[in-house]
Amino acid sequence: MPEFFEVKPPDEALALWWERVTHRTGVERVSAYEALGRVTAEALHSPEALPAFRRATVDGFAVRAADTFGASDALPAYLTVAGEVLMGREARDAVPPTGAVLIHTGGMLPPGADGVVMVEHTQRFDERSIEVLRPVAPGENVLEVGEDVMQGAPILPAGHTIQPQDIGALLALGLAADLPVRERPLVSLFSTGDELIPPDAPALRPGQIRDINSGTIQALCRRAGAEAQRNPLVSDAPDALLAALEAALPVVDMLVVTAGSSVSARDLTAETFNRLGAPGVLVHGVAARPGKPTILAVVEGKPVIGLPGNPVSAMIMFMLFGVAAIAGLMGADAPAQRRVPARLSANVPSAAGREDYVPARLVERDGELWAEPVFGKSNLIFTLVGAGGLLRVPLNATGLRQGAWGEVVLF
Amino acid sequence: MPEFFEVKPPDEALALWWERVTHRTGVERVSAYEALGRVTAEALHSPEALPAFRRATVDGFAVRAADTFGASDALPAYLTVAGEVLMGREARDAVPPTGAVLIHTGGMLPPGADGVVMVEHTQRFDERSIEVLRPVAPGENVLEVGEDVMQGAPILPAGHTIQPQDIGALLALGLAADLPVRERPLVSLFSTGDELIPPDAPALRPGQIRDINSGTIQALCRRAGAEAQRNPLVSDAPDALLAALEAALPVVDMLVVTAGSSVSARDLTAETFNRLGAPGVLVHGVAARPGKPTILAVVEGKPVIGLPGNPVSAMIMFMLFGVAAIAGLMGADAPAQRRVPARLSANVPSAAGREDYVPARLVERDGELWAEPVFGKSNLIFTLVGAGGLLRVPLNATGLRQGAWGEVVLF
Repeated sequence: MPEFFEVKPPDEALALWWERVTHRTGVERVSAYEALGRVTAEALHSPEALPAFRRATVDGFAVRAADTFGASDALPAYLTVAGEVLMGREARDAVPPTGAVLIHTGGMLPPGADGVVMVEHTQRFDERSIEVLRPVAPGENVLEVGEDVMQGAPILPAGHTIQPQDIGALLALGLAADLPVRERPLVSLFSTGDELIPPDAPALRPGQIRDINSGTIQALCRRAGAEAQRNPLVSDAPDALLAALEAALPVVDMLVVTAGSSVSARDLTAETFNRLGAPGVLVHGVAARPGKPTILAVVEGKPVIGLPGNPVSAMIMFMLFGVAAIAGLMGADAPAQRRVPARLSANVPSAAGREDYVPARLVERDGELWAEPVFGKSNLIFTLVGAGGLLRVPLNATGLRQGAWGEVVLF
Repeated sequence: MPEFFEVKPPDEALALWWERVTHRTGVERVSAYEALGRVTAEALHSPEALPAFRRATVDGFAVRAADTFGASDALPAYLTVAGEVLMGREARDAVPPTGAVLIHTGGMLPPGADGVVMVEHTQRFDERSIEVLRPVAPGENVLEVGEDVMQGAPILPAGHTIQPQDIGALLALGLAADLPVRERPLVSLFSTGDELIPPDAPALRPGQIRDINSGTIQALCRRAGAEAQRNPLVSDAPDALLAALEAALPVVDMLVVTAGSSVSARDLTAETFNRLGAPGVLVHGVAARPGKPTILAVVEGKPVIGLPGNPVSAMIMFMLFGVAAIAGLMGADAPAQRRVPARLSANVPSAAGREDYVPARLVERDGELWAEPVFGKSNLIFTLVGAGGLLRVPLNATGLRQGAWGEVVLF
């Protein structure tokens, strides 16, 4: 009864699979205040120039720069104070020649002024005039109209995942409401296996284990920007799984099944995906450890994933394929899973022809990031607890040496 | 009218400030399924051993290892098949000498067995017996009781921020409900400045700008695990701010005021914090650029922050002090803001005696992370849009050279 998989390298498996996924989530409109982590559904352009008027960037006096040329401590320029720009008010009165208007940081530059002398470079001379001790150049300490962004300029591309600063940029331009973003994908999670009981069941009988994959995969979905619904446990009876998937498929964006961990349970999953619809299973087996018996399918243009029952394998494979799929369903351009380079604190053995994912603690030493591999059987969930990420050993490496640079997929 | 701050280096400012913050958020109990990103309120220990019974890690036959010693293709061991362990069922019948019991990955090891022969290393001999072609050692392909975690062992310390894999570990142990976590801090945000209007106001008059700090700081709070309430804009009239802060202080965990950007507006903020209560302002000015005019205060044991009005400065200083405070209010042990080392793609000038924070794009080249500084006036919000983080130029550096390693605070 040997296990024959046509295993595919992870990158190739992902490409082969995703090529057939045509489904995308819909577009909804949200407030910019609620847009953190959402993905833009279209490219956005600036409706106006920012700033909309010339602004002082310091506290001081708005002047005609030419009036200050050559000014110094020894030979100050004497300017007549001709008023004050109040915050939030239009500066209507022009600065006359050899005049100066008191202005605050962010205040509107009055007509005629083309620079701002910092208050530290001035001295009060008498009731009506000041000494300017340093010259200012035209444009100095001034933010010009459109210097932050010009009217009509692109501000965010389609497929951009919105960060706090993007919210700031949108609000600055008055784009506070009706921001077009992709709907969060709805992922439906099924755990199969006669050995499973719900984690909140009162007692565990010998031979039973608690279902933890629904919980870990749900958390990974949420972190990636999706909603995830957990479903009742499904027995290893073939038709039970098919019925559950058939009911969910039309109303969700992705299906995820964690199989019982035996070969027959996994074969049941693949068979059920093929019965569910075309094209069915595209990848059955990935050249990765842990996670080899992963199944990638497409039904009605929607992604369908079969994960190994082993909770560590299931998490790692979902980080590889599921998180990418969530980003893909929203048309997000960025990799949903952050990766950083780190140096290895120990040799990590592997075999050519498969990618290894080794849980690693991350520590900073002398300004460099080091990954400390956590070795242990790949089915121990506690190897992941306390790890900061997964060290990736590339497909064609037979291992990585202590001190070498590796890539860490961050949790 | 020069500006005199007793500026403090950021680390020193944070320590000086936080020493006086005695307030912590309360404890609430949540489902493990809803615990992603929450902070444990107490150390947790395992109520039971995981796994609770010996489990097979492969598909094959449970055997007495000694019966397989010396087995090879040429000289197989012949064992009598004595039954099958069904998934989720107790394995009650012992494996007799020279017997073998069919078992699936994750199945319970029957009494008498001390190893599992992989199915690939067996051949069916006749109806009732198999040939074993490789020996197994005692314990091989078996997960022992407590091998993942022992009963009573520490599983998560207090102050741990819960990750997807931690949820898995909790569920595996049946800790699905009533998980003690810290309440999310409630942060109350106030923007002051006569020049500000709400971003959704219909029209911008000359001299007015839209309030964006409430939106960016709210997003940073949420990302750090806090709730944040935006309040109506406060005018620069002294008593208006005091009244607003007095009303909020008793019912929230932290107050954040973004000041108008002029010196007088900032002085008003500091004065108001001192009127609000003791000890009041502890730090007035931070040796950082941008962000120098930051105010750190404590009132009734709660953190109170005054941020510069400049949206870029406000964001950067909140990432330094506000995000740390949110973690601190929950007693979280980890830095709330992820930092990674990266190499510089260009020289970055600075001045000794202050920390500079320069927005940077992050790119991976040849397995190393590079930071491409985005130069531009520090009050342009679009210098942050598209940046992946902030490059920190240390206090005593006069700059960083191209190719050198720097630290990047990730957005």
